Amino acid sequence: MKVAVIMGSKSDYPKLEDGIQLLEKFGIEVVARALSAHRTPNQLMNFIKEIENDTDVIIAAAGKAAHLPGVIASHTLIPVVGLPIKSSTLDGLDSLLSIVQMPPGIPVATVTIDSGINAALMASQIMSIKYQEIKDSLIIYRKEMEEKVLEADKNLK
Amino acid sequence: MKVAVIMGSKSDYPKLEDGIQLLEKFGIEVVARALSAHRTPNQLMNFIKEIENDTDVIIAAAGKAAHLPGVIASHTLIPVVGLPIKSSTLDGLDSLLSIVQMPPGIPVATVTIDSGINAALMASQIMSIKYQEIKDSLIIYRKEMEEKVLEADKNLK
Amino acid sequence: MKVAVIMGSKSDYPKLEDGIQLLEKFGIEVVARALSAHRTPNQLMNFIKEIENDTDVIIAAAGKAAHLPGVIASHTLIPVVGLPIKSSTLDGLDSLLSIVQMPPGIPVATVTIDSGINAALMASQIMSIKYQEIKDSLIIYRKEMEEKVLEADKNLK
Amino acid sequence: MKVAVIMGSKSDYPKLEDGIQLLEKFGIEVVARALSAHRTPNQLMNFIKEIENDTDVIIAAAGKAAHLPGVIASHTLIPVVGLPIKSSTLDGLDSLLSIVQMPPGIPVATVTIDSGINAALMASQIMSIKYQEIKDSLIIYRKEMEEKVLEADKNLK
Amino acid sequence: MKVAVIMGSKSDYPKLEDGIQLLEKFGIEVVARALSAHRTPNQLMNFIKEIENDTDVIIAAAGKAAHLPGVIASHTLIPVVGLPIKSSTLDGLDSLLSIVQMPPGIPVATVTIDSGINAALMASQIMSIKYQEIKDSLIIYRKEMEEKVLEADKNLK
Amino acid sequence: MKVAVIMGSKSDYPKLEDGIQLLEKFGIEVVARALSAHRTPNQLMNFIKEIENDTDVIIAAAGKAAHLPGVIASHTLIPVVGLPIKSSTLDGLDSLLSIVQMPPGIPVATVTIDSGINAALMASQIMSIKYQEIKDSLIIYRKEMEEKVLEADKNLK
Amino acid sequence: MKVAVIMGSKSDYPKLEDGIQLLEKFGIEVVARALSAHRTPNQLMNFIKEIENDTDVIIAAAGKAAHLPGVIASHTLIPVVGLPIKSSTLDGLDSLLSIVQMPPGIPVATVTIDSGINAALMASQIMSIKYQEIKDSLIIYRKEMEEKVLEADKNLK
Amino acid sequence: MKVAVIMGSKSDYPKLEDGIQLLEKFGIEVVARALSAHRTPNQLMNFIKEIENDTDVIIAAAGKAAHLPGVIASHTLIPVVGLPIKSSTLDGLDSLLSIVQMPPGIPVATVTIDSGINAALMASQIMSIKYQEIKDSLIIYRKEMEEKVLEADKNLK
Repeated sequence: MKVAVIMGSKSDYPKLEDGIQLLEKFGIEVVARALSAHRTPNQLMNFIKEIENDTDVIIAAAGKAAHLPGVIASHTLIPVVGLPIKSSTLDGLDSLLSIVQMPPGIPVATVTIDSGINAALMASQIMSIKYQEIKDSLIIYRKEMEEKVLEADKNLK
Repeated sequence: MKVAVIMGSKSDYPKLEDGIQLLEKFGIEVVARALSAHRTPNQLMNFIKEIENDTDVIIAAAGKAAHLPGVIASHTLIPVVGLPIKSSTLDGLDSLLSIVQMPPGIPVATVTIDSGINAALMASQIMSIKYQEIKDSLIIYRKEMEEKVLEADKNLK
Repeated sequence: MKVAVIMGSKSDYPKLEDGIQLLEKFGIEVVARALSAHRTPNQLMNFIKEIENDTDVIIAAAGKAAHLPGVIASHTLIPVVGLPIKSSTLDGLDSLLSIVQMPPGIPVATVTIDSGINAALMASQIMSIKYQEIKDSLIIYRKEMEEKVLEADKNLK
Repeated sequence: MKVAVIMGSKSDYPKLEDGIQLLEKFGIEVVARALSAHRTPNQLMNFIKEIENDTDVIIAAAGKAAHLPGVIASHTLIPVVGLPIKSSTLDGLDSLLSIVQMPPGIPVATVTIDSGINAALMASQIMSIKYQEIKDSLIIYRKEMEEKVLEADKNLK
Repeated sequence: MKVAVIMGSKSDYPKLEDGIQLLEKFGIEVVARALSAHRTPNQLMNFIKEIENDTDVIIAAAGKAAHLPGVIASHTLIPVVGLPIKSSTLDGLDSLLSIVQMPPGIPVATVTIDSGINAALMASQIMSIKYQEIKDSLIIYRKEMEEKVLEADKNLK
Repeated sequence: MKVAVIMGSKSDYPKLEDGIQLLEKFGIEVVARALSAHRTPNQLMNFIKEIENDTDVIIAAAGKAAHLPGVIASHTLIPVVGLPIKSSTLDGLDSLLSIVQMPPGIPVATVTIDSGINAALMASQIMSIKYQEIKDSLIIYRKEMEEKVLEADKNLK
Repeated sequence: MKVAVIMGSKSDYPKLEDGIQLLEKFGIEVVARALSAHRTPNQLMNFIKEIENDTDVIIAAAGKAAHLPGVIASHTLIPVVGLPIKSSTLDGLDSLLSIVQMPPGIPVATVTIDSGINAALMASQIMSIKYQEIKDSLIIYRKEMEEKVLEADKNLK
Repeated sequence: MKVAVIMGSKSDYPKLEDGIQLLEKFGIEVVARALSAHRTPNQLMNFIKEIENDTDVIIAAAGKAAHLPGVIASHTLIPVVGLPIKSSTLDGLDSLLSIVQMPPGIPVATVTIDSGINAALMASQIMSIKYQEIKDSLIIYRKEMEEKVLEADKNLK
């Protein structure tokens, strides 16, 4: 059970941290790398080849003209979860459109802007169709999430 | 190997047709339903319960304030692929944001607006982590897609 | 005379506080709950059933892909006032479109992004078609609002 | 039981027609007028005064910088349902923002761009808090809507 | 030589201050008022009638669904300069569209979001077609502006 | 009484035609030119110099990155009415922002996208502060416009 | 003197045709290819290597999440002119942002959406810093363009 | 080897500083000027004439209705790299569209909003088709950039 987390820049790490911890809590091995589709295209492609046979899902996070998830998706059949990162202009819209609007043939499974948690959960849900233990963890996670909401609700009342 | 395709309105069917045929060509059983998150919430929930145990991926397509994929995702752990449908105003932006911007905890794997093919391919890629035959089909599909591009390229030259 | 105020997350409370106080000042009973359409769908539906017979208006506030108001509206005929909450990306546009662009059949009465006051006033205006005392309170409220503007205007001069 | 339907231009009528018929089917009296907030401000205000005492809800439809619903709302406490009309540029976004983003104090209950049906349904739901017969009609309407979706769903299968 | 400056809320004043000072420096009488199109519609209309005969240009500033400039323009033939004010959501886009997209018949002369200076200059340029002294002031103003840019340019070098 | 109408491309003419006829009906001399800020910058500047002393208002219409109105405004103190023209992409938003968002110092009086009528009316209103006969024509125009709306309203009833 | 024109899909060709003809008229050799960054990544990279030593400028055109120009730019130092192609949704905004918003380090010289002519002219202007004959052609081109505008202007008068 | 850097306002300098230093590090002479297309149009045109014969590329940076790059481009055949500067409203969208959406005939090579580095790199890449030493510098720059990413990647691991 292995997820590769690739970010376009190391500065994206804080938005991925929670998600990585969640994956590890679920017992999933995480390999986190900072590789740019534009600045290190060869290393990126080498890394994708390397992980081709032992990785279940790839999470790719990037901002601005965020090509990273799509470029990875074009080199592998491993499902790629795309995480748009909001940068200093345009409020995340550029990252979102650059990731989700992939032309027919090479989709990216895009999730909420800046939500490393949702990227991790989507990766886990995908893996849960194969690994029962992840499904079990997800059931507990949803339960706990529900309880947190209900407790907040109780405090409100 | 089974995918449930749920559309918010039967009028969305033409945008899903190609994708459904592709899934069937890959040997995946497809159950297609027109169930609205808003107009038939109970039937929708019943259907989700029904398919809970024998479905690998759900594709949910909807337009405007497109709640269908997110509502489905909140009732199941089966990965939901969200397909935003462009309607007569706002050029697809409302559908896209209503599907992709899910709050933390319940992600939807959003793909290109109006691309039933990308929804089908993402569903297939997700299933390919479990079923080798789908991976094999996807390898052939990509090969053929590549060849089509190269032939178009040859004609251009 | 009763309004249910449902927020998708307890963190939305500060944007609702003024509105809740206004409703109470108008002599309207307020039940405030933090229930998520996605994280606690069953509790949400139970709560809607509970209040079905003694509630005049529901105010539902949510951010991002804000399904809460529309999901509530699909389970009841009580008028739902939708309050879009601006979150950390996209400046409130995602919340607004996810709430207002409901497909034909299930409308939500959407008000200004982040304006708990406008949500409370719209709820009150709706109830005022039935309860004369609320209409009287609203007449006074508008009068006082007018006076505040005129006093500010006097200071300016 | 009376609804006033005011449109900024007679050319908006086709987008309101279905909604008006629905209101009449529900036994609600409809007065439809084409009065512009900008080109006939005095007649508009006179009309609002006229209907002040025997009208339950006002539906106001307008395009571009759509001030009509907000201007009406500033002259009455009758709840105003705002219907944004898409015009030849900007895909409905200008109408939507001009109607929904009312400053604190004077809310407009905004519904889906171009959806006369949703405007009519929201008006009916508001009135249903006072008139049981409208609630009964709405229950039947939702039932029929549900059945239509289910029939379409059956055909799909 | 008189300009009326009307703002929808006294809180808009800081964005108008520079512009008002400029008008006064040009020897133009300025009457500044905080009157809301929605909260004080009657006082607004009274004020417009009052100034009808001795005012050359009206500057109207407002945020969100900014109806103020258009509503004023519908009650007078005095040219109205519209100043969109950015508020806490949507980055000024709502104010801009609500002011500039006036339906045919009642135009508003819209200027840069949040630029009180541009509103004042446009008012002055309009008046300069009648008053030579304002034209002379504007010639000097442009000269000084040019010199400031050239001095900044010199410092850069 | 003279207005110069400058369009960035002759293809913009249909959107200006009604406005030009209206100006002529008001007894205003119109000089219409197709001069591009980018393709004929020198002829444009020569023309501006030529008309400097006998023109009251300039209407400038342009699409896409519509610099024409701003460039003209930077070479003259004659008030420039800017008319954004919608082109084949982006639905008029690029033209609007390129015209209205002028930096401090050089404002353009921007009107509704594609509305030659509003450009002509704004030019007329500006001139009406100097020429009583134009004010008289505008009073009649508004009266007729009002009557047209009221007749449409009568037909509706 | 050689330009490589790469389009993400052969269907983009009509938007490039005029530009290609212009380049050829200027005596520039054009190699036009239809190669997708996503569907034929390897052939694309091979082609870039092939042309590395004898090509002055690359024009890359693509729609939706348009990665082609950026991906090419990351594999070569030849200047890449990016041409955003409008597709069936979002009016060209997705293509534009995916091309222009490149992260620091790998710029793309982005031009007007759908304007093959501007892509060709930018390529020519870049080459003109090296080849005097292209500069000469561009001088004639601008002259002719100016004359066309002036003739249209004459017809208008 | 010479680049002219023109900014619409001296306040844009901080966003250009890094880029200017990079150009100088590459041995390129930089002339930096603060000249506004609107406030100092004559000085701007004089400066363009002055540099016409000894400048390889012009970088033009501006915010809001950013006409500077396009206006410069209309007066010279030297390639103009346009740098959109984000200002206090609209998040950079107005600057971007005002620069990139140039009408056919006069293109601007637009780069990432606020990225002085990308403007400098694009200028360098353009010049590298003529000057081998710049190409050599760029090769080293990319190498170093790659190494920085790889080091960050190493630290992450």
